[in-house]
Amino acid sequence: MTRTIVESATKTSIIGFDQPFSVIGERINPTGRKILNEELERDDFSRVEADALAQVAAGATILDINSGAVFSNKMAEDPRYADNNFVEPDLMRKLVEVVQAVTDCPLCIDSSVPGALEAGLEAAKGRPLLNSVTGEEERLEVVLPLVKKYNVPVVAISNDDTGISEDPEVRFAVAKKIVERAADFGIPAHDIVVDPLVMPIGAMGTAGLQVFELNRRLRTELGVNTTCGASNISFGLPNRHGINNAFLPMAMATGMTSAIMNPVALPVGPKKLAEKKAEIEAKGIIIPADMDDETFCQLFGLGSTLPRAGKEMEAIRAANFLTNNDDGGAEWIKFNSANAGAAGAAGGRRGGRRRRG
Amino acid sequence: MTRTIVESATKTSIIGFDQPFSVIGERINPTGRKILNEELERDDFSRVEADALAQVAAGATILDINSGAVFSNKMAEDPRYADNNFVEPDLMRKLVEVVQAVTDCPLCIDSSVPGALEAGLEAAKGRPLLNSVTGEEERLEVVLPLVKKYNVPVVAISNDDTGISEDPEVRFAVAKKIVERAADFGIPAHDIVVDPLVMPIGAMGTAGLQVFELNRRLRTELGVNTTCGASNISFGLPNRHGINNAFLPMAMATGMTSAIMNPVALPVGPKKLAEKKAEIEAKGIIIPADMDDETFCQLFGLGSTLPRAGKEMEAIRAANFLTNNDDGGAEWIKFNSANAGAAGAAGGRRGGRRRRG
Repeated sequence: MTRTIVESATKTSIIGFDQPFSVIGERINPTGRKILNEELERDDFSRVEADALAQVAAGATILDINSGAVFSNKMAEDPRYADNNFVEPDLMRKLVEVVQAVTDCPLCIDSSVPGALEAGLEAAKGRPLLNSVTGEEERLEVVLPLVKKYNVPVVAISNDDTGISEDPEVRFAVAKKIVERAADFGIPAHDIVVDPLVMPIGAMGTAGLQVFELNRRLRTELGVNTTCGASNISFGLPNRHGINNAFLPMAMATGMTSAIMNPVALPVGPKKLAEKKAEIEAKGIIIPADMDDETFCQLFGLGSTLPRAGKEMEAIRAANFLTNNDDGGAEWIKFNSANAGAAGAAGGRRGGRRRRG
Repeated sequence: MTRTIVESATKTSIIGFDQPFSVIGERINPTGRKILNEELERDDFSRVEADALAQVAAGATILDINSGAVFSNKMAEDPRYADNNFVEPDLMRKLVEVVQAVTDCPLCIDSSVPGALEAGLEAAKGRPLLNSVTGEEERLEVVLPLVKKYNVPVVAISNDDTGISEDPEVRFAVAKKIVERAADFGIPAHDIVVDPLVMPIGAMGTAGLQVFELNRRLRTELGVNTTCGASNISFGLPNRHGINNAFLPMAMATGMTSAIMNPVALPVGPKKLAEKKAEIEAKGIIIPADMDDETFCQLFGLGSTLPRAGKEMEAIRAANFLTNNDDGGAEWIKFNSANAGAAGAAGGRRGGRRRRG
């Protein structure tokens, strides 16, 4: 039974065939997050702390920390900031320290910069996951020695110097090569978590079937755990959550053991609140002036102004149960009681007056 | 590529590995539906018509018609009504005629009474699915000749004279026996749709894994299509829809090609409406006296007073796409545009005044 052990100073998170699905929270990543990127440039880590806590509360079992920031203001003053080999190691160290100070959740050190990987490995307590090695020769030569030196597990992405193949046979072969090269370094297969690469289903109709088949082969033929950037599957489509909510259980049924994803539902923001209020007022409904936003959200079935677990987490918890990784359904029942609290607030008291027959 | 052809007079529904999942609507069934049972006893078929139309609108591709009514009032006057061999054939014929008059959706003739099966086969136009044969000797001897005589496909349930085995190997062996016995009658494997029997996950932690493995074996070793009573999986658990929504895609990823299920979401009834109104009035919200119930439901995120596709249908449509049975996602996009209409009504107009910063 393949088990990949990931640890903080005090907590162990196991990725494995006989374990609940491992949810690697992806939010701590300045790529494409303009505000976070600017805050990091000013040494403001408050959002990082909040994102760490919200993801753990929503069910993340590992937190990915990506240091890929671009410090444009500093760059203008000091050209060294144009080089991510200069920026990221220091930033990664700070990110790891900040996150470790607020949570004991095990970490995943994520960067394209080798110096940042090593800085993260030095700063992280316990046994973090390293993200990532690929089948590219240069990357293999740089990352595998770090994996060996720090005795950590590593995410292995199935692309190589020829790029990302659309042929799943080629991606399997790349994964196999990485596992073999790792073995040359004395790194066991159970410390490799293969990402078979998820293509957008909107662009490639076989993208789902490819992943399901690769999950099976990676598990039975290579004996490795697997992960993926789950939301890639729904890129460019309407109702992405609807696709993701089906994809994750399907991936789990065919053997996938973790995903890098956002476990937190988008909180309802001021714009959506204002739109909803305008809409209902146009219908002649009168709301007390002193009603707080959260009560308003609950009453109108809008979700919540607070971060909370996304629908994908419900799908994953159900699939944990259905893959026999939730003994007696204890976690499912607990999850739904916790949710019933919120739903209760939204769903109304029992025994209210009957006003309509 | 296994394909099971089910037909009405004018419409073909294919169950198959390379087809969208076949949704066999289960609602036309008096078992456990007291009001429907009473209506049928009075020859009132209005609810049957409505259920047929609502299920087709929600996405059913085949309609199951079960004649298992108990006519207690008639029984008190005429003891012959205590015998379902007397009641069901006539009722089945009427049910088939009523449903055929309102929809061209292909049918599934469902009864434990052989006479009702034959009455249904006589009344149904086209090529209905027969539900069901089991591995019980008596049942095999009675049902397989009907299947042969009418040249129809049949649901084969994996229990036999020893009952339902908890051992999936035994259930596979029963399915294999049925396929072999059918072959003796000249019935091909592609006209057998095996139900591997879904146990409640709350009672048996391996229930999901059993079905996933059986799906694979039934498909690869016997080359048959598969079906199941999908909602059995969540029996006795909180948030049954959450379990079902994950189970269906998982079953599809492992090879299941149809399910007998309810595709229609429960409409919001007067009791829930009254409770919600009491709750919001208690919070000081004032609703115009002339607001209709459907507008109210939309505004308060309550669902709908009208029957509409359940969340399971979203999961199935996403999984169709992910198993490459929705070319270019055309059906997914259409489904979500249709839903966007409803959601749009609930979600508010864009560009409303901003009242909160």
